[in-house]
Amino acid sequence: MITSTTNNQIKNIMTLNKKARERKAQRLFVVEGIRAVAEVPASLLHAIYYVEGFGASTDGQAFISDISAKAPKVPMEEVAKKVFDSMSDTVTPQGVLALVKMQDFTLSDVLGADSSKPAHIVILESLQDPGNMGTIIRTAEGAGATGIIMNGTTVDIYSPKVVRSTMGSIFRVPHVVVSDLGETIEKLKAEHGVAVYAAHLKGEKFYDEFDYAGPTAFMIGNEGNGLTDEMAAHATSYLKIPMEGQLESLNASVAASILMYEASRQRR
Amino acid sequence: MITSTTNNQIKNIMTLNKKARERKAQRLFVVEGIRAVAEVPASLLHAIYYVEGFGASTDGQAFISDISAKAPKVPMEEVAKKVFDSMSDTVTPQGVLALVKMQDFTLSDVLGADSSKPAHIVILESLQDPGNMGTIIRTAEGAGATGIIMNGTTVDIYSPKVVRSTMGSIFRVPHVVVSDLGETIEKLKAEHGVAVYAAHLKGEKFYDEFDYAGPTAFMIGNEGNGLTDEMAAHATSYLKIPMEGQLESLNASVAASILMYEASRQRR
Repeated sequence: MITSTTNNQIKNIMTLNKKARERKAQRLFVVEGIRAVAEVPASLLHAIYYVEGFGASTDGQAFISDISAKAPKVPMEEVAKKVFDSMSDTVTPQGVLALVKMQDFTLSDVLGADSSKPAHIVILESLQDPGNMGTIIRTAEGAGATGIIMNGTTVDIYSPKVVRSTMGSIFRVPHVVVSDLGETIEKLKAEHGVAVYAAHLKGEKFYDEFDYAGPTAFMIGNEGNGLTDEMAAHATSYLKIPMEGQLESLNASVAASILMYEASRQRR
Repeated sequence: MITSTTNNQIKNIMTLNKKARERKAQRLFVVEGIRAVAEVPASLLHAIYYVEGFGASTDGQAFISDISAKAPKVPMEEVAKKVFDSMSDTVTPQGVLALVKMQDFTLSDVLGADSSKPAHIVILESLQDPGNMGTIIRTAEGAGATGIIMNGTTVDIYSPKVVRSTMGSIFRVPHVVVSDLGETIEKLKAEHGVAVYAAHLKGEKFYDEFDYAGPTAFMIGNEGNGLTDEMAAHATSYLKIPMEGQLESLNASVAASILMYEASRQRR
């Protein structure tokens, strides 16, 4: 049992919870909670930590035997309560966390190359709120989106809050971070025939007046500022989500959800 | 200038930030931030507090003269920086907050009695997350919903986090808390001809296969547990929001947004 927070593994987990740069360097991130860890594909599990006494509970026993069966080579460590509390990112730790390997998705995965359906992509420019990011990934799975493309100034998808709010979708929705978002959009358009839509004040047609049966991408901008002019200029078309009342904008994850579900509705 | 946190007004604001019961008893709540306070209808302003030095800044001067013009009788108090920081609910206070009177909406307001359009209502059962609640109110305004009905175990709509995330919609979307949600739903159905839809696993038709041109209400349940069987039994019809992948549910505010915008789409 690990009993000290100065243990190197524990110190590393605390660092991985806090620093996007370290996550990126190690290609590892932290997943917390019984159900969340159970949803991690076995091939991605790197190590598991549980609080002292967890293995003696009924839930704990079942959990440990399930994991041992599906991922027999993954090390599991028992950790003293005080140590577990300090490595947890949540207020009420459930007593289990895993170190998980990042997946190496490609643009081809995001385009849905493995599926029979046309591309259905969400492009995020500098989205900042972890809850919005997590919700967009979760809704993307539900709406059958093929993947997500982000620029480097978008909130880190592997931060503990984002991971939590994806409800497991992070393992199932292909996603890539690209260094030049504009260049990538031009590539989607020229090489893959993707129509790229930007929700924009300049939009003259409503979002439900376009045909999303073909390869489609929706651009969503930063919560406070929307899309930059530079990025919006890469769009094939501007669209408008109508708003009544005095509202100036919708929440970014709501706008993304309305667009993704409209594409899903049209494709049914 | 108020220089002590033991000042009664300051103590009261701290209490109102924390306690739903006190907000309810005094019929007052706190709104923070320059833009948010500027959006409060003048008739609802009860008192305004700003941090020392705010009135000397260009923004501050403009703000104070705007408020003085539109609400000349509302008292404004300058507060020492340390005191302001302790009465603020945010990490980076903007230096202005207001005590605001609650509006007395009725079920008739929620039904849209004053508007020409048929009722378009969201019914919330025990929703817990302030961000979800705020997002639903904000989207409701955008989608042209006529109002929101909640039960008493729903998160308090006047909590600082909810108020912030409504982006001003809280003043413009009629809302009521009712003691018996089931009874209210029966009344909506019997007396106002409202069709009440519940997103439910038992739903056999997709959400876009119903006609929402007439008076319509959507029921949204608690984040973890969904609608209780008792409440779902009051629905006119069950509907299904299709989900691909392995997703078990959508975020509550996303589900509400998809439904409200489908009604809005059909009504255009």
